[in-house]
Order: sequence, then C-alpha cells, then structure tokens
Amino acid sequence: MKKIDLNSDLGESFGAYSIGNDEEVLQYISSANIACGFHAGDHNVMLNTVKTAASLGVGIGAHPGFPDLAGFGRREMKLSPEEIYNLVVYQVGAIQAAAKACDTNVQHVKPHGALYNMASKDSTMAVAIAKAVYAVDPDLVLFGLAGSELVRAGERIGLRVAQEVFADRTYQPDGTLTPRSRANAMIHDVTVAVDRVIRMIQEGKVTAVDGADIDIQADTICVHGDEPEALRFVQQLRERLQAEQITIRNFGDEYHE
Amino acid sequence: MKKIDLNSDLGESFGAYSIGNDEEVLQYISSANIACGFHAGDHNVMLNTVKTAASLGVGIGAHPGFPDLAGFGRREMKLSPEEIYNLVVYQVGAIQAAAKACDTNVQHVKPHGALYNMASKDSTMAVAIAKAVYAVDPDLVLFGLAGSELVRAGERIGLRVAQEVFADRTYQPDGTLTPRSRANAMIHDVTVAVDRVIRMIQEGKVTAVDGADIDIQADTICVHGDEPEALRFVQQLRERLQAEQITIRNFGDEYHE
Amino acid sequence: MKKIDLNSDLGESFGAYSIGNDEEVLQYISSANIACGFHAGDHNVMLNTVKTAASLGVGIGAHPGFPDLAGFGRREMKLSPEEIYNLVVYQVGAIQAAAKACDTNVQHVKPHGALYNMASKDSTMAVAIAKAVYAVDPDLVLFGLAGSELVRAGERIGLRVAQEVFADRTYQPDGTLTPRSRANAMIHDVTVAVDRVIRMIQEGKVTAVDGADIDIQADTICVHGDEPEALRFVQQLRERLQAEQITIRNFGDEYHE
Amino acid sequence: MKKIDLNSDLGESFGAYSIGNDEEVLQYISSANIACGFHAGDHNVMLNTVKTAASLGVGIGAHPGFPDLAGFGRREMKLSPEEIYNLVVYQVGAIQAAAKACDTNVQHVKPHGALYNMASKDSTMAVAIAKAVYAVDPDLVLFGLAGSELVRAGERIGLRVAQEVFADRTYQPDGTLTPRSRANAMIHDVTVAVDRVIRMIQEGKVTAVDGADIDIQADTICVHGDEPEALRFVQQLRERLQAEQITIRNFGDEYHE
Repeated sequence: MKKIDLNSDLGESFGAYSIGNDEEVLQYISSANIACGFHAGDHNVMLNTVKTAASLGVGIGAHPGFPDLAGFGRREMKLSPEEIYNLVVYQVGAIQAAAKACDTNVQHVKPHGALYNMASKDSTMAVAIAKAVYAVDPDLVLFGLAGSELVRAGERIGLRVAQEVFADRTYQPDGTLTPRSRANAMIHDVTVAVDRVIRMIQEGKVTAVDGADIDIQADTICVHGDEPEALRFVQQLRERLQAEQITIRNFGDEYHE
Repeated sequence: MKKIDLNSDLGESFGAYSIGNDEEVLQYISSANIACGFHAGDHNVMLNTVKTAASLGVGIGAHPGFPDLAGFGRREMKLSPEEIYNLVVYQVGAIQAAAKACDTNVQHVKPHGALYNMASKDSTMAVAIAKAVYAVDPDLVLFGLAGSELVRAGERIGLRVAQEVFADRTYQPDGTLTPRSRANAMIHDVTVAVDRVIRMIQEGKVTAVDGADIDIQADTICVHGDEPEALRFVQQLRERLQAEQITIRNFGDEYHE
Repeated sequence: MKKIDLNSDLGESFGAYSIGNDEEVLQYISSANIACGFHAGDHNVMLNTVKTAASLGVGIGAHPGFPDLAGFGRREMKLSPEEIYNLVVYQVGAIQAAAKACDTNVQHVKPHGALYNMASKDSTMAVAIAKAVYAVDPDLVLFGLAGSELVRAGERIGLRVAQEVFADRTYQPDGTLTPRSRANAMIHDVTVAVDRVIRMIQEGKVTAVDGADIDIQADTICVHGDEPEALRFVQQLRERLQAEQITIRNFGDEYHE
Repeated sequence: MKKIDLNSDLGESFGAYSIGNDEEVLQYISSANIACGFHAGDHNVMLNTVKTAASLGVGIGAHPGFPDLAGFGRREMKLSPEEIYNLVVYQVGAIQAAAKACDTNVQHVKPHGALYNMASKDSTMAVAIAKAVYAVDPDLVLFGLAGSELVRAGERIGLRVAQEVFADRTYQPDGTLTPRSRANAMIHDVTVAVDRVIRMIQEGKVTAVDGADIDIQADTICVHGDEPEALRFVQQLRERLQAEQITIRNFGDEYHE
C-alpha cells in the first residue's frame, strides 16, 4: 500500500503578530515544519506549537530559516557555509529542546523560504545544511525539493531524506519548479492539482510544462492552511488519497517497519 | 582536598561587534557561561566559543538571558513564568546542539544579568528556570547565587546546583550581594578579595558588611576577563588557590566520583 | 459649536505580519497615530500609512513606543529619561521625514502602550517625552491621557496638548483609568459608552466607578478598528456626534481659528 | 585655494557594544557620517554623536544603511526601489530630528556599506536614494563614490553632490575601486597614499592599476579611525594638506560663498 506524508509550515506567529491557521491545519497534516525564531516564530510560539502538534501525533519538524524576521526569510542572503551550518545547528537545537520539554522528539528538518530555495540549487549550501542536521542528530529526516541538491546532499551525508512535491506548482523539464514570476507557475484547478499528486505518488511521474513526463519521487506534499481555499484543497486531497487507498503517515517509528 | 570551579561569561560578541577577551580568559577558567544569542552572542559566536572551550577542556555552560540585545540582558523585564520557561528551554537547546556538533556536552546553565538577579529573589522565576533546565536535561548543573531562590528552586526540582560566589563584591547580613549602587558594594583590594574567596572555600564563611560572619557555600567563583586588571586578579587567585592546594575543576565526569 | 477629534493607532503591521484594518478605520477618524518602527510598524508600512492618511485629510501623528517589537511596546521598560528623550526624538524625526516626503506635516505625537501608561503617572518620563517633542518641533500637539502627568508636562514645556478620553473604559475617582485587571474596567454596552463620551464633550463630566461625577476634558477620543465590533462602535459614535451637532475635526490649520 | 573635506563613519556603537574611536577621530575630520540605527548605532549613540560632532563644528551627516545589524550593513540585500527610498527617508528623518534637538542641521547623506557599493553601480538604487534625500531636504549634500551612478543620480535629481575618493584603495581604468578581494586593492604605504590624494585634489588625476592616469574629482576623502595606524594616516594627511595649502572644510554655509 502506498504511503504519503502531508507537511505544512506552522508556528510562524511572532509576539502580538498572528499568522496562519495552525489549530485547524494540524487536523489535516502528518508533519509540521515549525518556525524556530529566526525568520518567524519565537520561543513562546515554538513551544506551544510543538506541544499542540505532539498532542495530535503530528511529526515535529524544525523549520530553520535565515535570520531575517523583517523579510520572513524569503529574501536571499549570501552567507558563508560556516554561517549556514551554524544557524541550522542553532535552530534545530532550540526546537529539539522544545520537543524534549514536551516529551517528544524532532522528526525532520525542512529549511524555509530562501534558504530552502537556494539550497535546492547550490550544493555548497545544501551540504552545509545536511552536515549541520547530521551533526545534531543523524536520525533526523531532511526534507528537500524532490530531485534537488538538498536531497542529494542529505543522501551523501547519510541522512534519511524525504523528497517534497508541490501540488499547486508546475515543473520544468529538468524537474525544478517553474519560478513564481512566470504565468504558468501555479495550478489553480484543484482537481488537476489533486490528480497530479496522485500520479506522482502512484506512478512517480509528473507532466512538465513542455508536455513531457518526468520522473519525480513524492515522499511528502507541502500544503498550506492560511487561506480558506487552501484548507478546502487539503480536505479534497485527503478524501482522494483515502479513495485511492494511499495512507497518510509521517516518518515516525512505524515508518521504520 | 578542597575543590573549586572558576566560571566566566563568554561568547558575548555579536556580528561585527567584539566584546571581551575570550581566548585569554579561557586559559584560566574551568567553566564557561556562553551567551545564547538573546542578550548577546549569535549562532556563529556561540559555536566558535563552544568549540574553543571544549578544545581546552573548559566546561560548556548555557548562559541564557532576556531577549534584549540592546540592553545586554541587564534590564529587568516582567515576563510570565511560561515565557521564562520557554526562553530558557530555547536557549539551552540551541547550545546543546552546538555542543553536540562539537562532540561535547553542555555541563551547566547559568542565567545572565537581570534574569539571574531577578531569579535570585523571585521564587516563581527561579522555579520556571529550574523546571526548564530539568525538562531539557536533568543532568545539567544549575548555577545560582549562593543561598538564593534560584539555588533553592534547583534543589527542589532535583537538579545538581552550584552555589556561586563573587570575589569582588560585599555581602549583606542576609547573604545577598550589596547592590552596586551602594558605596561599599565592591572590593577593590585584590589581596582582600583573594583572602575572602579562600576563606569562603575553606571555612564556608564570609564577613558581611556589618562585620559579622555569615555562612556561605562556594562551589564556583565568577571571574571576569574584559579588563587587564580583571585578568591579573584571576592569575593571582589561581596562584593562591594552588598554594592552598585547592583544586580548580568543573562539574564534569570526574566530579561524580 | 462643540468639536472633537477621533484618533486611532495605525501602521502597526511589520514585514509579512499584517495587523489591524487601517484602510477602513481611516474612513472614520480625524487623527492617526502611526507606529514608528520601534514597537510596531516599519519604514515601508510607515510611509504607506502616512501617504494614505494624508490623502484622506487625516491628521498625521507620531506614535513612538518602546524599542520592543516582541512585546508590541506593551511591556514596561525602565529606561533613563535621556533614553526616553532620545527614542522620542528619533521616532518623531523618522515620521516627520515620511510626512515631508508625502508633502504633509506631522500634527501630533501620542506615545504608545507602556510608554503612554508609564508617562501618565511618572512626571520624569512625561517631561522627557514633552521635551523631546518640543525640541523636534514646538508646534506639535502632544496627546496624553486626560488629567495625566503627560498632559501636565506638555503644558509646562509649552506644547499644545490634547486630552484623550476612552469611551470603553471606566474612571477612578481620581480621574485615572480603572486598570484592565479589574472586573469593572471595561464598558461593554455601546449605548452607555457613547452616552458617556457625549457627556464628557458637552459637560466635561464623567461618572467614576464610585458613582460620583468627576471633571474631565475631552479633546480627542481613542477608537479602535481591529474588530468588527470596534468599527460598529465608531460608526455609532459618529452618528450620535452628528445628531448632537458635535464636529469631528483634528488639530490642523483650521483648528487655530 | 584648493579645498577638501575629510569624512569618517561614526556613531556605530550599539547598546553595550562599543566600536570605533569617535572622540579622537572627530578632532581630525570635517564631516561625520553618523549611523542611524539600522546597520549600526542606536537612538542614544546617534544623539550623543550628533551633539559631540556639532560642538566641534564637524558637519553632521546621515549614514543610512541596510536594516541588518548582524551584518553591519555590509551584506548585499535585494530590496525594491520603494524600500530603498523608504529606508533612506526614515533614517535621514531620524537624524534630522537629532540634529534639530541639538540646534544644528544635517549637512549630508552618505549611504553605508553594501547600500553605498550597490548604489555606485546600480542606477535604480542610486535614483531611489537620491529621490529620498531630495524629498526629505533638497539642500542636503549627497556623498557618493567619485564617478559613480550615485553621484550621477544625485546630480540628475538636483542635489549638490560630493564626490568621494579613497586614499588607501587602488582604482580600475574605468574609475571604479579595485575589489578588496584582489591582491592589489589596498595601498599600504602611507606616503604613496598621501601623494595620490594630493594629486587627486590638485590635478584631478589618479593612476589606475594599469598605469594610466584617469580623471577623478575629489570633493571629500574617506578616512578611518578605528586603528592606531589609521589615525596616524589622518594626521600625516592633514599635515601634508596644510603644507600644500589645501583647506580642510565641509559643505556648510561658508562653502556656499
């Protein structure tokens, strides 16, 4: 029987600033990427999000980002590999302690925003991230864009990796995401999006923008919950996964069987 | 044979801003309280300081502080016990990961500045700190002002505690430090300061400002290294400890014997 | 004919974090207190808010706060009078330049949150704020809690002051607001709240929590817009002010007549 | 008689972090570029630096930078022209108010670090900066690298500009600075450096790295004071300027004659 993980970015509120719809999204996902206070989130939000996610059996993930609250970690920063390493170690450690304090463990690490995007293409950054994750805990699962440098770096370092696919984005013939700046970057038709995801899981194929099929491995799907529309998409996706008898599960203990 | 630990605050530089004299101070101490990026330090400075301290066999300590870089963690903040708990968990976790990445462990936690001072007197804050430390790792040693609420909270929660004394400060009849605002708060005569420390270690006594002796337990002495004068004091103290056959050691494995 | 000003706190969004309902609130008020980037807001949000407010003829106000984004400026900070002075000068200057760049002027200064509350009672802080405002531009109007130390300081320094009243709060016999921690702090009945405001404007009286009337001068009323309920209150208040032939206007040029 | 301005970056300390040697440098320069709290400095340091500079007759300059304290404004940031405009307006306004509070005026604006370097080559950024300066006060002098896009943008917008030269750096045949990464970027021989500066002022020429002379306009020279060596250079330069009867002066009132 096929299995898939559904992940979402959570814990992004900061102080008096509230963002996202965490309570509801947590009902639908199997893995939570929780902000660690650099690009979003703070020590209070982080602990509370870890606690809630753990209580629902959702896998706890570190979601480290650039130290850039004003830019929400979406702005490219040119940092040395040493600094990339250091900031991943720091943020993963912070959430490990939060997980420990909630009697649970961190399951995975998914870099955020510009850190994720840059590391998809830049192998030096990808290796710095993978080394940091491995140094802190070699049992952590590294989430990266399917087919990216980050996935390759994780495998090379010896980490378990989870290849991530995007339901609402189109793919280039080389397997990279079509940049958001292009007109055909997004898939707005929910049924089409769901169909594509199912095919990625069942056949390991997706149709690129040039009409040709490419190989893709789908271990985890990124979903969003900040808009009512996004939540409806997740609900529809879950129904379809159930109909296709694809199990939604994360990378926890049972996964090792 | 008597034993004593010498600790100092390190890793307080930030970005382009350099503070302290860490390389040299590390030669003279047995435990380093390393800033965790909230009141001082950053992820780069923290990892480098952990690495250097570990390479010299100096015990690694978390030095969590208020989230107040502009005030260097010296300004009082009225935070809820939950927030105190959360910020200690977060900061201790960050440095635990740094230690793990350097193949070592965190030995102790010493709160910084206003957090330390407030927790010396406020049992609610003290308990929040002690609970956070225990939740993250019950084997950590909690450093607190000798005889303070923080020490009491640590003991009650079940942590090993280290009672900290100050060589250059005078004590009130109730065992608290004379506030810096008072004329007689500081001891400027190095020989007097060293004599007092030796007596605290050997006899468990110190003369308070009213001339009467009070009981005091000295497990660790706070020393400074940012001024040439401070370094000379540490050197003189070390010579005297040696002459008195008091061993300088931290709370690592051998300490358990 | 009676006149009144309606003010509201705006421009509090930060980076990717959106807060408030500025576009709509601006339709109903005559003066906008715009965050200056210390406790909320940033340079982008500030300029955009100044531009929109100016285009609608709403009086531009600096809303300086403590340097505490994480606490939204609501946490008490013990700063020296010099620092209070400096941070008010800095923030008022920043928004003056924004106003200049939008071909308009800053009309008033209203301290935010804990800075406002502390300066209501602490004359040293109040004087530091008033001196800073006067030093930057003696024509600025200082908004302060009616009857507070801040109003007194402004008058003593030689500033025009606007005494601010709160529609949804109860008053103590000495004219201070009932702390929010007490059960009777808030007025939830809109009709009662509106009636009280009208009486403050027309008679200069309000009934305190002990049932006795006290004198109060109402130059400006603080209203909110972040909740649908709050907006309905403002609309109702505006209708009643119109029915009572009380003109809503700010402290701009015509006010000098 | 020839005239030249000597400028230096000041006011870069932050909270407990001290950087630079401002008190002494101020003795030797005619214009001070004072950090505005984004990449360095804070409201306290800024006001104190403005006060001291003004008391010594040194021209007050805004030194706006990227919002990046951790990177000291030296890291490239890809910001929209609107954000560049907004952050220059904000920072210039903040220091204008500080100057007003010290009974003086801001004389000039010199962008800092990566903002300065990027705007030297990127005309869109340069125009955004120049427009912001003009919008806040069209009488401000804009400092830019001699021959750069920033200088051109300032002239086009209608600002007075001051072309800045560097004594310790070599020039490319196209008039740009040799990047620091190259071996021949720096001039370490003080006598050679001073000779080059004198020639730039007297003849408007400098020898580029290929041996050919290029035209260069020297209105202001950037000097440093953080190292004892740097201070000795400034002293030697001043002596030589005096010997050559070149007057050191800024762009204040007398300059208009």
